[in-house]
Amino acid sequence: MDKILRINLGADGGPKYTEEPLGDYAGLGGRALTSAIVHNEVPADCHPLGQENKLVMSPGLLSGTAASTSGRLSVGCKSPLTGGIKESNAGGQAAQVMAKLGYAAIVLEGSQPKDLYKMTISQDGVKIETANDLKMHTNYQLMNKFKDDYIKSGTMISIGTAGEMRMANSTIAVTDPEGRPSRHAGRGGVGAVMGSKGLKMLLLDGTGAKMRKPQDQEAFKQANKTFVEGLKGHAVTGQGLPAYGTNILTNIINEAGGYPTYNFKEGQYKGAANLSGELQAEIEQKRGGNPTHGCHRGCGIQCSGVFVDKDGNYVTKQPEYETVWSHGGNCGIDDLDTIARLDFMDDDYGLDTIEMGATIGVAMEAGLIEFGDAEGAINLVHEVGKGTHLGRLLGAGTAATAKALGIERAPVVKNQAMPAYDPRAVKGVGVTYATSPMGADHTAGYAVATNILKVGPGQQDPLASGGQAELSRDLQVATAALDSTGMCVFTAFAILDQPETFQALIDMLNAFYGLSLTADDVVALGKNVLTQERAFNTNAGFTKVHDRLPYYFKREKLSPHDVTFDISDEELDSVFNW
Amino acid sequence: MDKILRINLGADGGPKYTEEPLGDYAGLGGRALTSAIVHNEVPADCHPLGQENKLVMSPGLLSGTAASTSGRLSVGCKSPLTGGIKESNAGGQAAQVMAKLGYAAIVLEGSQPKDLYKMTISQDGVKIETANDLKMHTNYQLMNKFKDDYIKSGTMISIGTAGEMRMANSTIAVTDPEGRPSRHAGRGGVGAVMGSKGLKMLLLDGTGAKMRKPQDQEAFKQANKTFVEGLKGHAVTGQGLPAYGTNILTNIINEAGGYPTYNFKEGQYKGAANLSGELQAEIEQKRGGNPTHGCHRGCGIQCSGVFVDKDGNYVTKQPEYETVWSHGGNCGIDDLDTIARLDFMDDDYGLDTIEMGATIGVAMEAGLIEFGDAEGAINLVHEVGKGTHLGRLLGAGTAATAKALGIERAPVVKNQAMPAYDPRAVKGVGVTYATSPMGADHTAGYAVATNILKVGPGQQDPLASGGQAELSRDLQVATAALDSTGMCVFTAFAILDQPETFQALIDMLNAFYGLSLTADDVVALGKNVLTQERAFNTNAGFTKVHDRLPYYFKREKLSPHDVTFDISDEELDSVFNW
Repeated sequence: MDKILRINLGADGGPKYTEEPLGDYAGLGGRALTSAIVHNEVPADCHPLGQENKLVMSPGLLSGTAASTSGRLSVGCKSPLTGGIKESNAGGQAAQVMAKLGYAAIVLEGSQPKDLYKMTISQDGVKIETANDLKMHTNYQLMNKFKDDYIKSGTMISIGTAGEMRMANSTIAVTDPEGRPSRHAGRGGVGAVMGSKGLKMLLLDGTGAKMRKPQDQEAFKQANKTFVEGLKGHAVTGQGLPAYGTNILTNIINEAGGYPTYNFKEGQYKGAANLSGELQAEIEQKRGGNPTHGCHRGCGIQCSGVFVDKDGNYVTKQPEYETVWSHGGNCGIDDLDTIARLDFMDDDYGLDTIEMGATIGVAMEAGLIEFGDAEGAINLVHEVGKGTHLGRLLGAGTAATAKALGIERAPVVKNQAMPAYDPRAVKGVGVTYATSPMGADHTAGYAVATNILKVGPGQQDPLASGGQAELSRDLQVATAALDSTGMCVFTAFAILDQPETFQALIDMLNAFYGLSLTADDVVALGKNVLTQERAFNTNAGFTKVHDRLPYYFKREKLSPHDVTFDISDEELDSVFNW
Repeated sequence: MDKILRINLGADGGPKYTEEPLGDYAGLGGRALTSAIVHNEVPADCHPLGQENKLVMSPGLLSGTAASTSGRLSVGCKSPLTGGIKESNAGGQAAQVMAKLGYAAIVLEGSQPKDLYKMTISQDGVKIETANDLKMHTNYQLMNKFKDDYIKSGTMISIGTAGEMRMANSTIAVTDPEGRPSRHAGRGGVGAVMGSKGLKMLLLDGTGAKMRKPQDQEAFKQANKTFVEGLKGHAVTGQGLPAYGTNILTNIINEAGGYPTYNFKEGQYKGAANLSGELQAEIEQKRGGNPTHGCHRGCGIQCSGVFVDKDGNYVTKQPEYETVWSHGGNCGIDDLDTIARLDFMDDDYGLDTIEMGATIGVAMEAGLIEFGDAEGAINLVHEVGKGTHLGRLLGAGTAATAKALGIERAPVVKNQAMPAYDPRAVKGVGVTYATSPMGADHTAGYAVATNILKVGPGQQDPLASGGQAELSRDLQVATAALDSTGMCVFTAFAILDQPETFQALIDMLNAFYGLSLTADDVVALGKNVLTQERAFNTNAGFTKVHDRLPYYFKREKLSPHDVTFDISDEELDSVFNW
C-alpha cells in the first residue's frame, strides 16, 4: 500500500494512467489521504463536475491487514451536493482488496470523456476498456453481468444510473462478501464525480494478492486480539449491533423524542414500533434471512444482515436505521417491506438513502404526494433512477427540491440532508450537523452515542444547550482520525468507552508500521484532517454562516419536548477553536 | 412621499397594516431605501421564503415629480435566487403613482398566509381582500380582469403563476401607460417573495393624487429642462434608443464578438442580422406597431415599443436586447416573431427573460431539446408557467437546472444568469458580473457602454484585463446612486458623457428637496448603498470566492477573439477598495 494510481480518463487519445510512490502523502490513509489530496490538488473554486475535480479512493491505514473491522474505503472529492470537500466512506470488500493490491489511493482525474469506461485492476496491472454497452445499467445489473469476474477474490466498485446522470444525490457502490453492491459511499454525490469522469465500474481482482504484513507480527496479533475482545465485550458492538443492526435505534430515538417525523415536523412517530430493529430481525429470522452478517470479511461486529421476502427470496441487505427512518417515519410510512424495497432501489440506482428519503419528505410537504403514500414514494425513486424530468429534480437533492418546489422547510446543512436524529432533541449531533465540513452528517461526530446511548466520555443531556460544542469537537476529531484507519465508525462505541480498546487500536497501528504513536498523535491526526478540510471549504467560499442549521430550527418547536435548536452562534463557532 | 406602509399579510386573524413616518430612513428612496430596510431589518441568514424576509417596494427620490424619466420602482428583499440582497427595478407607472400617493416604501412582512390576497391603495386608504379566485392567474389575465380599475389614473403591480409558485425565477410585473403588465422587476426571484407573502396583486389608485411639489419650483423646472435637453442631445438617448430600442445592441455586440451564442459557447451568432433592432423596428413600423414608446408617462427617452403580429395585433411590448439575445442567439433561435411570443409568455407567467433564456440554453446544452428548436423553447416556458415537474425545475433558475441536469456550463454568478454580453469579450462588464452584490447583472455597472459604445469616462479596450476593475467600481457606485433617484439607468449615457446633464440631475435633487448636494455626495450615496448591500451579503455567507466567474470562463476560449476571462482575483477583490 505504498503507491498511488492516477487515471486521466479524459486524456487526449483515451484514458492514461500512471503509478507513483506515495511521496509526501506517506503515512496517510483513508480520509486523511483523500482529504489531503483533494486539499492539495483540487482548486477549491472549481466545478465539482469539471475537469479540475478529482475522485480519490483510499483504503484506511489498517485495511488489507488482519485487523478486525478495518474495511472502510474512503472516497473523496469536491462534492457536487455541498460544494465543499467530501469524504464518504463505505464498507464492503473494496478497501481490503485495494490495500492488498498495494494501492494507498486510486485517483480519477481529468475532463469528461465521451465514452463510458470499465476498469480492471489486478496484480497483472490496469486494464481500461470502453463500456458504452453498460450505459444506464443499475448496480445490480452490473452485478449480474460481472459477478463471476470478482466474486472469488475481488470486488466491484460501481455507479448506478444516478451517478452516470451526474446527480448530486448519487453514490458509489461497493460489493459485500456475497458480491452484492449493497455498501455505498453514500453522501455528497460522489457517484456524480465518478460519472463525470466516465468510469462506470472498477473491478478489483485480488487474485494472488496477500494480506499486508505488519512490522511486528506478534505485537500486532496481540493488539488485534485485545481489540476484538473489546468489540465483543461491549454491549453495543458485542450484542446490540450484531443482534439487531443499526435499526435497534428506532425505538430508542423515538422514545427520546428525537425521531424526525413528517419532514422534521414532529419528534415521535406513531408507527415507530412497526419499523423497529427488533421487529426487523424477527422478520428476517422467521423468513430465512439473516440479521447478523458482516459487510466485509474480517468484521468483528456483524451489524449488517439480509432482508428477504415472505418466500425467503433476497430483497436487499438489512436496511440501516437511517434508511428505515428516511423512508419510514420521515415520510409517514411504517411498513418494513416497503422500506426494504426502497432500500434495494436506492442501492440499485445508486442513491443515498438518507438524501433520497429526505427529498421525498420535502416533496410530500410540498404536496407532490401525500405523507404515508408508499406506492408514491416508490414511484418517485423510480423517477429518479430513470432520470425523468421529475427524477432529475429530485436527484439534485433535498435542498434543490425544496427550492424548486418553493418551500422553506428543507432539513439540510451545506445542502446535505440531515440524518435520522432531530437536532433540536439531540443537540450534540445538531452541533455536528452544523459544523462538520461535510454538511449534515451524523457519522462525522456521533454525539447520539453520548447524548442518548450514554456511551463514551463527555456526556450531556440531549436537550441541554451547554457543553454540546465541546462534545461535538472531541467526536469530530476522533472520527476524522478513525476514518483514516479504515476502522468502521462503530468501533468507536468500544474505543470511546473502553480505554484498553482505544489503546489496542494504537498498538495495532504502531505494531503494523513500526511507530510509537500515542493518543495525542491520534488527536493531532484528527485535527490535521479537519483543518485541511476546513481550509478547502474556506477557499470554496464557506464561512461560519454555513456552520448553521436552517433558520426554522431556531423558530419551530419540536414535539414532544417543545424544544428549538438554541445553541448560540458563538458556541457553534467555538467548535474548531482548539 | 414621507411615509412607509407596512403590511403583515400573515398576521393572526388576517392581514394587518400600519403607516409610519420615514424616521431614520428620511432622505432615502429607491434602491438606497430598499437596501437600507433589507439590511437593517431582515436577518441575513433567514430563508428567502421565510417569515423573516421582507419585500420592499420604493419609488426613487424624484419619482412622482415632473422630472423626466424618473419612473423606476425599486423592489428589494433577500433573493430566493442568489441568497443575497436584491434590488431589482422596473419601469411602468408604479413608481410615479406610489410616490404621488405619498409612500416612500411599501413593505410586505410576516409569514405565509393560507389565502391569496389583493390589495388596493388609494387616497382613501388601504383595502386588503382575499382573492383565492385569482389563483394561478397570469399577469395578462389579471389585466383583463382589472384594467378598468386602474387604467385611468392607476397601475397594477402583480405576480404571475411563477411568483405564486415561489419560483426562484419569478418577477413582479408593473403596468405601462396602456395598462399592460409589460415592465418587470425581473431579476432575482422577487416575485417568489411576493408570492410567499400571499399577495397576488396590488392596485395603486392615483385618483386625486397630485404631482409632488419641489421646494424651489423654478430652479427645478430649469434643471429638468437642461436634463431633458441633455437626453435629447445625446446620440444614444436622443437617437439610437428611441428609434430602435435597446435591441440596437444586437449588431453592435455581435460585431464586437461579445454576443454569447449557444449557451456562451461562441461570441458571434450567424443569425444575428435576423434579430437586430433595426429589423425589429422596421417590422414594427411596417405592421402598424410602434418602435418609439415610453414605458411610463414622462419618459424623455422612449426606448420601449410595441410589437405586433402580421395582422397588426398586439403581441408584446418591443422585446429588449437582453430578451432577444437570451431566447435568440443564446438558444440558436433567429426569429423575432418567436422571440416576441416568448417575451409575452415570460411577461404573462411572470418570468425574468434573461434567466429564462439562459435556463433554456442550459437545457439545450444538456440535450433536453436541440439548439434552435423554437417550438421546443416555447413548450419549455409553458412548462414553467404551468408548474409541471419539468417546469418546477427550470423555474428554479439556470444554476439549479444545470445542477439537476449534471452539466458544468452554467453561466451564472451568485446563482444568477449572466446577461447578453460575454464577460470574456467585454471584460469590464465581466468584473461587474463577478463583483456586484446582485449576482451577474449588467445594469449594476454597465461597462458595455464604456468598453464597446465608447460612452463616458474611463474607457478601456473590452479585451484588456487592466483597468476594468476601476471602471466597474466607478460605474457600480454611480449606478447605486442613480437607482436611488428613480431615474432610468439609460439616463446614464447622457449623464456620464455630458457634465451639464449630470449637474442638472444634482440640481433637480437640490431644487426638489432644498438641499445643496455636490457630485461627491452622490458618490458617497452610491458607496453607502453598496457597502450596506455587501454587509448583508457577508452576513448571508458570501465571501470573495463568490465574487468570481464560473471556473470554465477562465479555461474555455471564446471565439472569435480566442479570449478567456483573465482578470486576476486580486483585481476583482480590489473593486470595493475605495
